[in-house]
Amino acid sequence: MPDYVAPTRDMEFVLFDLLDAESTWRRIPALADVTRDLVAAVLEEGGKIAAEQLAPLNQVGDREGCTWSEGSVTTPKGFKQGFRALADGGWLGVAGDPVYGGQGLPKMLTVALEEMFYGANTGLYLCGTLTVGAATCIANHGSEAQKALYLPKLYCGEWAGAMALTEAHAGTDLGIMRSRAEPVPDGSYRITGTKIFITYGDHDLTPNSVHLVLAKLPNAPEGTRGISLFLVPKFLVDADGSLGARNSFASGSIEHKMGVKGSPTCVMNYDRAIGYLIGEPNQGLAAMFTMMNYERLSVGIQGLGTADVAYQAARQYASERLQGRSPLGSQKHDAPADPILVHPDVRRMLLTARAYNEAGRAFAALVGRELDLAKYSPDEAERTRAERFVGLLTPVAKAHLTDRGFEACVMAQQVFGGHGYIAEWGVEQFVRDARIAQIYEGTNGVQALDLLGRKVLRDGGVTANEFIASMRGDVNAVAGEYRDALEVAIDRLSDVTRRLLARAARDPALAGAASVDYLDLFALTTYAWLWARMATVAPADAFGAAKRHTAKFFFSRLLPRAVALTQAIDGDSAAIMGMPDASF
Amino acid sequence: MPDYVAPTRDMEFVLFDLLDAESTWRRIPALADVTRDLVAAVLEEGGKIAAEQLAPLNQVGDREGCTWSEGSVTTPKGFKQGFRALADGGWLGVAGDPVYGGQGLPKMLTVALEEMFYGANTGLYLCGTLTVGAATCIANHGSEAQKALYLPKLYCGEWAGAMALTEAHAGTDLGIMRSRAEPVPDGSYRITGTKIFITYGDHDLTPNSVHLVLAKLPNAPEGTRGISLFLVPKFLVDADGSLGARNSFASGSIEHKMGVKGSPTCVMNYDRAIGYLIGEPNQGLAAMFTMMNYERLSVGIQGLGTADVAYQAARQYASERLQGRSPLGSQKHDAPADPILVHPDVRRMLLTARAYNEAGRAFAALVGRELDLAKYSPDEAERTRAERFVGLLTPVAKAHLTDRGFEACVMAQQVFGGHGYIAEWGVEQFVRDARIAQIYEGTNGVQALDLLGRKVLRDGGVTANEFIASMRGDVNAVAGEYRDALEVAIDRLSDVTRRLLARAARDPALAGAASVDYLDLFALTTYAWLWARMATVAPADAFGAAKRHTAKFFFSRLLPRAVALTQAIDGDSAAIMGMPDASF
Repeated sequence: MPDYVAPTRDMEFVLFDLLDAESTWRRIPALADVTRDLVAAVLEEGGKIAAEQLAPLNQVGDREGCTWSEGSVTTPKGFKQGFRALADGGWLGVAGDPVYGGQGLPKMLTVALEEMFYGANTGLYLCGTLTVGAATCIANHGSEAQKALYLPKLYCGEWAGAMALTEAHAGTDLGIMRSRAEPVPDGSYRITGTKIFITYGDHDLTPNSVHLVLAKLPNAPEGTRGISLFLVPKFLVDADGSLGARNSFASGSIEHKMGVKGSPTCVMNYDRAIGYLIGEPNQGLAAMFTMMNYERLSVGIQGLGTADVAYQAARQYASERLQGRSPLGSQKHDAPADPILVHPDVRRMLLTARAYNEAGRAFAALVGRELDLAKYSPDEAERTRAERFVGLLTPVAKAHLTDRGFEACVMAQQVFGGHGYIAEWGVEQFVRDARIAQIYEGTNGVQALDLLGRKVLRDGGVTANEFIASMRGDVNAVAGEYRDALEVAIDRLSDVTRRLLARAARDPALAGAASVDYLDLFALTTYAWLWARMATVAPADAFGAAKRHTAKFFFSRLLPRAVALTQAIDGDSAAIMGMPDASF
Repeated sequence: MPDYVAPTRDMEFVLFDLLDAESTWRRIPALADVTRDLVAAVLEEGGKIAAEQLAPLNQVGDREGCTWSEGSVTTPKGFKQGFRALADGGWLGVAGDPVYGGQGLPKMLTVALEEMFYGANTGLYLCGTLTVGAATCIANHGSEAQKALYLPKLYCGEWAGAMALTEAHAGTDLGIMRSRAEPVPDGSYRITGTKIFITYGDHDLTPNSVHLVLAKLPNAPEGTRGISLFLVPKFLVDADGSLGARNSFASGSIEHKMGVKGSPTCVMNYDRAIGYLIGEPNQGLAAMFTMMNYERLSVGIQGLGTADVAYQAARQYASERLQGRSPLGSQKHDAPADPILVHPDVRRMLLTARAYNEAGRAFAALVGRELDLAKYSPDEAERTRAERFVGLLTPVAKAHLTDRGFEACVMAQQVFGGHGYIAEWGVEQFVRDARIAQIYEGTNGVQALDLLGRKVLRDGGVTANEFIASMRGDVNAVAGEYRDALEVAIDRLSDVTRRLLARAARDPALAGAASVDYLDLFALTTYAWLWARMATVAPADAFGAAKRHTAKFFFSRLLPRAVALTQAIDGDSAAIMGMPDASF
């Protein structure tokens, strides 16, 4: 079974050397008390929980899976204790509102913690992230009474959260959903409908669960403008927070799926379940987007966490497995063969995973910083700029961290050769687990269309160009060997963006046709900027030398993909739209 | 459960329109009786067996898996009948030697049949391909007596084959294997050792199995020059072909693995098992390579077959699933949404899978043609040239068909959204099944090193340049719109090859560092040549129009990767070798 070691050294490097988090925190009153020592201690403790409490349950979760019986779901053996370790340690309230029992620490920090928890045990931590996400949504859109009643219970993990959006016929296209909410005289609603793919829709980890459910009010407008958001607890809650009657919803079944088997994926039947409106009628999708944006970044980090534990396992295997000899001459004369780490292609696979993971870690922290600035900055201009950057970067984080995360898991599996395909070694589970992150919370195709269609084209490229300009501002400050390549990469992204803006006006299919390649190009350019900066600020020790080696690898072997992506984006949408439907 | 429909129309296009198989067959005495009508009839019948007998067992095989009890393996329900349908229909002897009951049909045809059988049910067909592979090895290296005794039984599938190479500590590096063979006075040997990862090492599909086992004779030279090949039947065979005593080997256990669960992956313990030398002492690896080369092409086709059935499933889902509206305006006004096939990114994913699959099908047939020429051509120069091409192209086929096959399966899964992750829909099984093909029969990294190190650099680029020249000879004959792009692509491959030859002399790590990207570039260029030719010879009907659309897509959206690969290959191996081992 693969071990998990939280990469705390690299996390501190990203926070303090790359992003200079301390100076950001110092100038923001809400975060002024956050110190490097505090953060280092939190990371160390988080790493311990991940390694000691969560990771040992990961393979068990996959093997045993969840079981369903008469509407109730039982999670794998040990998951209840694992979740209690997370909850009782306060790990679900780290970034929560201090007024309701949260710890008010920055998102930049929780991004790192989430990576650890996902890396150690995705199946289990999904319950954690849904709980945090539900709390975030209630904190942003709930009434004072809702916040007072639910937030303390969610922050301390006494109760869990779940989100219920998808219906069998309505996935990406939520506008056609059928679940309905009927108002009753006491001000509450009765929710009726069937939702599918509800992660942790039912489980035994906590005595109560808070579902955030999308449904339509009577006579609601058609489409996404007619969707409202409801808080639907599994057990009704008295004013003092104690549990009352069981609400009328239950899980109809759970899915048999490719991975993340430790987490139940439920069909949920709501049968006149009692629910409470969150926010305004028909504004549910906007409110749910708070949770979805939180979850999108979180799912991106899932891709990263799984990719890092897969890398760790492959690195260890490559150091121990003896096969063949180095092309530079035998390294271990007294052994029958050298460790496979001597082979260039094994190194290429490991370096690819590593280059993506470490840039991904920096990128996730960057998005975390923008979230902190959007929430806490005393400067309104900085807040709104950060909000725009969050909107721009969230789909990139979700899609690219999970696409590259899956790629890294597949490469790690390849390093294991045949053993990579065998369950016992654990690495094939990482591949299966990582795959879902490219699909749920909006497929990566949907993320790409969100980026190019909504975030880049719709505002005429203003936000994208603002972000590109912020990268360009660093070109002269990076190590000389990367300066030209970085400038070329940034110019390329800038030019492609300009051309897309011009072409999209006369080609309605262009955004969809170019979106996935554009997201890849955007992310790859951002990674180039991050790698150039990381190589520049890396310390003069072995850790720093490894950073510089990996940067060199990234620029030499991975960044070239940008040229291909640019050519593909510049291609005509007719190459995609021209094929008659019947010919597929 | 996904259906499977054999792409016979496209297979005939590849054989007769693209590769003009008829004129090849006409001028080769051994194949002079093969006609288009005969081949069309065989393809149609093969397609029926695949669709009606094998495909319905595919999901069952995955769900049920194999079971092991006291050394014996039981295959999933229905597999025995499925294998009988294959065997009794003569499908395992199609290309076999007519002297021993084979049908003597060309490899170009069996390549297409294998695609069908893999596409329909990889787990089951693996027993078929191992049986054909064992027969091929015995036909090439066995004694007359061995051929007479074993080939008829293998061709008709009364008995099955298996190959036993890998040991726990010796996978890619067979030279360090420990299994030993002790000669006894009657001329036979006693084989002792433990092999792992033996596909169909034990099973209940046939009453007897013929294992081809690698082992070392007493005082054999060190390394791969000291390996001999033995024929080790599960039940000893009397001179009249009837079964005698059970030989002393058995399966110690079976593996729990990511996919191809319908096929058992066995630990095999040989305990002074009676074996018969095949070929010369210490020449076993060369003899086994006949089987391995057969299996390598076959495993490539596994990737293709799985990718095609995954594409078929995704195409159907995209035509039926209603979500959102076309960017060109609603297509189905009376439905709540349009089929997702209207979305450019869904089309991009389908076209990517299709472009790789159809080029892959053509490429596999091309390798099949070279195998036929190498075996049957009356012209010695043509035979030896074809042999060289087979050596050059086999690792490309194995690695690229499986890499692109896996990519196509992942894209097909992505088209399904959340349903792609659920077992019930069947597409996640294709992803899991396809993954092994990148690993076994020599990992794709090993294939790439075989291509660049052994097949390109070792002969000073002679064979590679001969193949490149053969592609260049077609440039002026392809449709005008592709002429320039094809010429650029061929020049690029040619230039990269020349630079690698020059650089490799002074950089011993270069071959390993550049190999995977070089194989990709080699294949992508070959696919460009095939697509340009397919677009040129495609008929003036809907089928031909789809070919031309897909060619346009390939050149516009996929071929650009060649530029990135070239830049990466031209990179310094120091970017890969420079990282200290301890820093990984």
